[in-house]
Amino acid sequence: MIKVHGLSLSNHSAMVKFALKEKKIDFEWIETLPYSMSKDETILEKSAIGALPIVEYEGEFISETLAIFAFLDQKFPDTKLFSTDPLENAKTVEIINICQFYIELQARNYYPFVFFGAEKKEASQEIKNKIHMGFKALERKASLSPFMMNKFSYADIYASLSIFTTIPVCKQVYDWDILEDFKKISESLNIINSREIAKSVYDDIAKAMEKM
Amino acid sequence: MIKVHGLSLSNHSAMVKFALKEKKIDFEWIETLPYSMSKDETILEKSAIGALPIVEYEGEFISETLAIFAFLDQKFPDTKLFSTDPLENAKTVEIINICQFYIELQARNYYPFVFFGAEKKEASQEIKNKIHMGFKALERKASLSPFMMNKFSYADIYASLSIFTTIPVCKQVYDWDILEDFKKISESLNIINSREIAKSVYDDIAKAMEKM
Repeated sequence: MIKVHGLSLSNHSAMVKFALKEKKIDFEWIETLPYSMSKDETILEKSAIGALPIVEYEGEFISETLAIFAFLDQKFPDTKLFSTDPLENAKTVEIINICQFYIELQARNYYPFVFFGAEKKEASQEIKNKIHMGFKALERKASLSPFMMNKFSYADIYASLSIFTTIPVCKQVYDWDILEDFKKISESLNIINSREIAKSVYDDIAKAMEKM
Repeated sequence: MIKVHGLSLSNHSAMVKFALKEKKIDFEWIETLPYSMSKDETILEKSAIGALPIVEYEGEFISETLAIFAFLDQKFPDTKLFSTDPLENAKTVEIINICQFYIELQARNYYPFVFFGAEKKEASQEIKNKIHMGFKALERKASLSPFMMNKFSYADIYASLSIFTTIPVCKQVYDWDILEDFKKISESLNIINSREIAKSVYDDIAKAMEKM
């Protein structure tokens, strides 16, 4: 059986949980701290740089969200979340890259402040511009009718959970309700997040936050 | 026919050229400046954020290197550079992610200084540590016997050209011969880069640099 070494709080761990449930794959969840918090060397051995989630399957370990997505879709192809159409699939990867690099990676600069009680860093206009550019790119490239691509896909999972953490960053650092500026993206996210599986995934995050 | 809107100088444009040649796909190269340099709005329309390369195929445009890799492998499957084995493929994506996030994205902080004559920024110990961590991850996760994975793959193309730009960053910013510290990676790169196609790709970069 698939084992997921994940942190319930983490949006990337939640992405993999979301995908597994959409694909109806049974899994065992092993609540785990990243190497940066636990200094547990065995986590470092199993992953690229000690980050979570890590998927374990028949003694092999896979880390990095996109690598896990690829593995799950090839190994368990009954419900595909990458398309078999080359163009549709390429655009799915493009959307994920936009969310990853131009949105979440930028917002990540403020995670210590927004999520972990660190001191507030200066609100960088450069980072704000990049996040805005990322959302513009998403608006231009995603279908948003209603999903990111023509069908529900990994792009929806990635967009949902990367924007989930970006919203409070924009609010708390820039006093910026970013989804007010991107209504079509907001509507798409509402539809993605109203799926029963999405609700259960977000419930788990909320519970983990309460515990913390 | 495939058209590549690319910048001969750029390592990411070179990655796509490398892939197309390995896959024996005919293509037309259209030398192009990124939006950041040309302010040409049509480039912005065709790509995620105006960066290169962009692949054009039957009136559709695909940007972001990994999305282009995915497209080429699905559309032209005769020579596969992603594996059809789920685990091998996942590990290929994992290696690419390591090169992308933990190596090249870090080195990129110093591209303006190293490649474009900008003033030298302070040598950040944090960035140096991250690059070191990225190489450690690569050493741990890649097969290196001799390729990154069991067979020549996109991981080799990505590693070769992302490390190509990281080497002068480490040298000029930190006076650090990084490949001296990672001999097995160095040996693997020597084998990748001795391929006839690799040589022609690097020749093109050298010519473009001379012109500049």
